[in-house]
Parts: sequence; C-alpha cells; structure tokens
Amino acid sequence: MTPSVRIKTDLDIRSFHPQSKTLMGPGPSDVSARVLKALGQTTLGHLDPDFTDLMDELKQLLGYAFQTDNKLTFAVSAPGSAGMETAFVNLVEPGDKVIVCINGVFGSRMKENVERIGGIAVVVADEWGSPVDPEKVETVLKANPDAKFVAFVHAETSTGVLSDAATLCRLAREHGCMSIVDTVTSLGGSPLFVDDWGIDAVYSGSQKCLSAPPGLSPVSFSSLAVKTIRERKTKVQSWFLDLNLVMGYWDGQGGRTYHHTAPVNAMYALHEALVMLQEEGLDAAWARHTAMHERLRDGLQELGIDYLVNPESRLPQLNSVLIPDQYVNEEAAIRRKLLDEHHLEIGAGLGTLAGKVWRIGLMGYGASQKNVDYCLQALRQVL
Amino acid sequence: MTPSVRIKTDLDIRSFHPQSKTLMGPGPSDVSARVLKALGQTTLGHLDPDFTDLMDELKQLLGYAFQTDNKLTFAVSAPGSAGMETAFVNLVEPGDKVIVCINGVFGSRMKENVERIGGIAVVVADEWGSPVDPEKVETVLKANPDAKFVAFVHAETSTGVLSDAATLCRLAREHGCMSIVDTVTSLGGSPLFVDDWGIDAVYSGSQKCLSAPPGLSPVSFSSLAVKTIRERKTKVQSWFLDLNLVMGYWDGQGGRTYHHTAPVNAMYALHEALVMLQEEGLDAAWARHTAMHERLRDGLQELGIDYLVNPESRLPQLNSVLIPDQYVNEEAAIRRKLLDEHHLEIGAGLGTLAGKVWRIGLMGYGASQKNVDYCLQALRQVL
Repeated sequence: MTPSVRIKTDLDIRSFHPQSKTLMGPGPSDVSARVLKALGQTTLGHLDPDFTDLMDELKQLLGYAFQTDNKLTFAVSAPGSAGMETAFVNLVEPGDKVIVCINGVFGSRMKENVERIGGIAVVVADEWGSPVDPEKVETVLKANPDAKFVAFVHAETSTGVLSDAATLCRLAREHGCMSIVDTVTSLGGSPLFVDDWGIDAVYSGSQKCLSAPPGLSPVSFSSLAVKTIRERKTKVQSWFLDLNLVMGYWDGQGGRTYHHTAPVNAMYALHEALVMLQEEGLDAAWARHTAMHERLRDGLQELGIDYLVNPESRLPQLNSVLIPDQYVNEEAAIRRKLLDEHHLEIGAGLGTLAGKVWRIGLMGYGASQKNVDYCLQALRQVL
Repeated sequence: MTPSVRIKTDLDIRSFHPQSKTLMGPGPSDVSARVLKALGQTTLGHLDPDFTDLMDELKQLLGYAFQTDNKLTFAVSAPGSAGMETAFVNLVEPGDKVIVCINGVFGSRMKENVERIGGIAVVVADEWGSPVDPEKVETVLKANPDAKFVAFVHAETSTGVLSDAATLCRLAREHGCMSIVDTVTSLGGSPLFVDDWGIDAVYSGSQKCLSAPPGLSPVSFSSLAVKTIRERKTKVQSWFLDLNLVMGYWDGQGGRTYHHTAPVNAMYALHEALVMLQEEGLDAAWARHTAMHERLRDGLQELGIDYLVNPESRLPQLNSVLIPDQYVNEEAAIRRKLLDEHHLEIGAGLGTLAGKVWRIGLMGYGASQKNVDYCLQALRQVL
C-alpha cells in the first residue's frame, strides 16, 4: 500500500561552507563575528520564559533604535518586504485613499501593497535620484482632503536618496493623515526620530545598518495607528501579519498567546546587533556612517567616479555612483571580477538605473575604514 | 532643527546567552550542533552565485524530503503559518469554495485563511483527537460539486493525530478538486509521498522533524497548482507571498529577479538539516521516529500515563498524553518544574485540549534514545 521511498541517485549534496566575502552592496551588510555567534546559540522554545524575556528586551532595544516610546514596537518574523506589508494591510482598508510618494523601487512596491488591499493610491512621483518633494506632497494633500495616509521611503535603497521625513510627516499630520514610512535602509545609519517626527507606522530590515542577518523586519506603530488597527471595520486580509493577533504574542501583559513560531535564533542575532548599537550609541553610529561615506567619496573622486545624487540628499550608507562611460558595457563583468578576485560584493542598479549605477553600501558593521579602503583598492585594480 | 538622541537611562541590556534546554514540545525541536554551526556561518548576499547554488541544492533536497519532482519546491522566507498562507492566497480566489477539514487548531486556521481571501469554507468537522473521516469528506464532496479545493492537516500538531492523506487526496482528485495539505509536523517524521499521493499544494516548517531553527516554511506545488496560479483572474492579495513574483527569484532559469532579501543564514541551516536527512535516509528517519515513540509509550505506560489518540492514528513525533487526574490542577507547575529543574520543555494542550493533555515531541534530531530516557526520568522525578 505504502509506496517505497525513491532515493534520487543523482543526489549527493554536501555541507555548504561559504567563502567569506565583503558585503558592500545594498544589503545584507557584513555581519560581525559577535552577531554570528549569537545566531548560532542553542535554540529555545518560542514560549520559553528566557526567550520571552529576550523579546521584551528586543522591544526596548528597538525603541531606542527607532527613538520611540511606542508600545507596539517589535520585529516581524519575516524580511523587510513583509514589514512593509504588515504596515499596509493592518492600517489600510478597502477604499481608503493613500498618498504614495514614488522616487524609486520601494515607493512602487508601496503602491502595489495599497492596490492589493483595494485601497486607492494617489501617486506623487519624483525622479529616481531625487528626494520626495514636500511641495508636491502638500499640493496633493490639499487636492485630496479624503486621503487617510501618506506613505514614503525615508532612505531609497534603489537610488541612495534621503528624503525629509520630518517635514513629510508634519505635512501629513497637518492634513489629518497618518504617515507610513519605510526606514529599511535608514534605521541605525541616518538620524531617525519616530516620536519627534510623529511617524505613525514605520518598518525596517535587520540586514542593513543593523548588520544582523536578513529575515526580520523591525516595526513600530503609534498609539493612533494601534487604535486604527483595533477599530478596523474589516478583518486584516493576512492572518500571518494581523497585528490584532500578533500583539497577543508580543505583548507580555496578561500572558502570551501562541500565534506563530518565532524565528528564535534570528532574534538572538538581532538582539546582539542592537546591544552593539546601544554600546556604540546611536549618534556615534550615525557619525561613523557619515565619516566612512566621506572617506569613500573622496577616494571615488580620485578614481573619477561621480555620484547620482546631489550632496544634500545623499545617503551615507548607500552610495549610488554613476558607472563611468568606458565601463558601462562591462559593468556586470566588473562586479563579477570584484566578487571572484576580491570576494567583494557591490550592488547593481535596479529598475531604470540598471546598467547606469553601482550601489556601494556602507552599512552598520560594514561602515568601517577597512571596508572603505579595501573597496577603493579593489576598484583601482579592476578598473 | 534635528532633535537630540534620547538615551534611555534605564537601558542596560547585555548579550543574551541561553541555557541549553531539551526541546520536547510541539516544536521547535532540538537543533544539532552541526546545524547551529551551519547557521552561524558568514552571511552571503542573497544574489551571490554561491548562495543561489545553495538555493538550487535546497530545492533538490526538499524534493527528496517531500518525495516530489515538482519544479516549484522551495522554502518560503517565513515560518509555517506563512507557508499556509502562501498556499491559500495563491490558489484560492474570492468566491472559490474550499472544503476545509477541521480536527484541531490548524484546520481552524485554514478556514481563517480561506475566509480572509473571500473564499467560501465548507467545514468537515471531526473530534479533536480523531483523524479526518474520509467518508464525511466524500459526502461533502458529493454535496458540493462546485468545490475547487480540499484542505486538511496531515499531522495535527495540536492533537497528535495522523490523517490518511493518500485517501483524502485521492477523493479530492476523483471529485475534480485540488488538495492543500499541511505537513508542518509530518515532513521528515512520517511517511509522506507528495507525488504518489497526488498532493497539489503542501507546506511545512523548518523547526519540527527537520530540526532546523524556526523561520522557514518548505513548500511544494504540483504543475496543476502552478498552472492555476499563473492563470488567476485576480492578483494574489499578498505581494510578499505572491508566487508569480517569488518564482522569479527561486527559478534559476534565465536569471533571477530580486523580490525580497532571503534569510540567508536560516537557509544554510535548513540546507544542513536536509543534508543530514539525506545521509540518514528518509525511511530510516521515519523508522527512528516510530522506534522512539514506542520506547516513550512503553515508559509512559509504566507511569500510568495514557494517550489521547487511538494507536492507529497516533503521530510518533507528537505524543498527546492525558494528564492524570491527580495532576490536572498543577499541570502548568509541573511543566515549569520540568523546565526549571530539568531544562526540559514539553508542550501544553492547545484550544479545547488546554489543561487536559501534554504534548511530548519526538521530532527530528530530538527523536533520540537519550531524549526519551531523559524525559521519562524527569517525569518520574517530578510526578
């Protein structure tokens, strides 16, 4: 009755032992030995009291990183894209109007999220490589008094642009809108003040300026956002991401309810990365990112390599540089050579910038003098 | 203009170093040192050629574990609940009728998934502790000729019951339905033949009988399921889980498209766990689970502890045992004592079985003589 097991005769797969590389793309960034060690510690149960204590600490550490006292601050058990989806599916209901600012790949993804919920996306478009223009946003806010949310990307990973989150959130609030902000690449790398700026929903990733392995998405929601989620008229379309259920697991008050099995080891690693951030201090980490960016910029200038983005909007942690004309046709080969001969990863351009820019990441643990100098030396040899 | 960083003065959080425990609950199960070591290896980029080679191997290894040649076989970048949601949101469209078999917590969750899509769930209910009754399913199939899917849980983690997946899938097919099967607790622990049984969509978890850390959900889809997904009339409501997009990243043919950042290190660990399964052999692993179950059962019998489930439907890897009357009032204290004094985790009852059963897991690496004997010895001391 029971079939017999078919052993695939061609299946002879061995243990995998990766060659160590220097990660200077758009993320994941270099993970420190200390965080990797934390990651590989013995697995606990997801309801073990020692582990739930760690979850409480993680909330506090993330509150520090986000500069918020929001009670609903935790890490979604999936990568940054799921953090984005968590923000949208919980806040936006079918028919809700959302002003979506698009100046790169991730703004477009926000629009996709809104539309898949049955929301109405009103787009404010800016050039790829430019920040979101607050004047345009204000005009669209005035023209759409029924809009409920303003959504934008603080640090566009696809272009290396920083937008003025403080101003955009102030405008949203002045027009009675809540703000949904993508800080995947800014958290830990650029000044970010969730409470002072009045951000209502924010999400990030573990693998950029926090330098934990990819797989978790830190998020935080204001009390107004939480009230909105609790008072929804419709159920959240995702069971897995429904914060009304997830809160029962993350909120220690009155006992925890099983929802899903948390990625226990990944949370050890994020915890350790955040302890390191706390030890260094947020402002020191931001200053380090800026200093390393300046060092890289000066070196690239000597190589004749220019930036896509104007100096006032440049992200220190994500350097989008124009590929010099003479290398445009062999840009993929150059990246491959860096990878093969120097074990160095830099990023390709995305979307409309594919083939036009390289993206050099200086994120978290990887924002170091060693990495900057190594990258410049490798580029000198390859170009 | 820029606010200054508020350092929380009460924030003095140190590195976390978990006490090693023996995990004999409903999962996560004990993770071997070998898998933990693989987990903690240096992080690669999610588009690094070495890493995408690993992804290809992972597909093959999962094909072996699932006993399938399905091309769409991979690991969702999130826990088992997201694997469940992946199956439902990709296959079911609004208005579709789904026959959902409920004999525990996870069947109810399937119903939630169907309803949040706007599908119609027709429930076939069985007692918690009993398997899904194929006769009832056949009756409901006959009464609902417009049903498109039959969904059920192969191994109910909440009750310790194995259902007859081969028969249920055959019935589904005979009535023109596709099958959606939860194998979270069966994969690697009980016979499972995705191709021979004709399962159309299947999902599992990394943290049960595969003994990798929690956080990934192995899935597989038949060619009919893939065709159905490609020919949907509506967009998948989840951007993150939309297989039409995810396939572009996992399918090596013609280059990979960035979708989300995969949890690179978690995939190292799953790969290693599957290499270990391949080394042991699937049939040997199944036999080991059965042998350890019998050893535990005999020991529990001596302690006067009975099973919830009839012998013919018992899962070897998840032993739901009735808490003896004299301990019912202190069952939580007993579990706590096992945890504190023996560093041993066993599971509580869920839902209607809370306070009535304990769930003792013998999963993957944890299905060992050492664990069985240790658990019995600890119970003897505590009871």
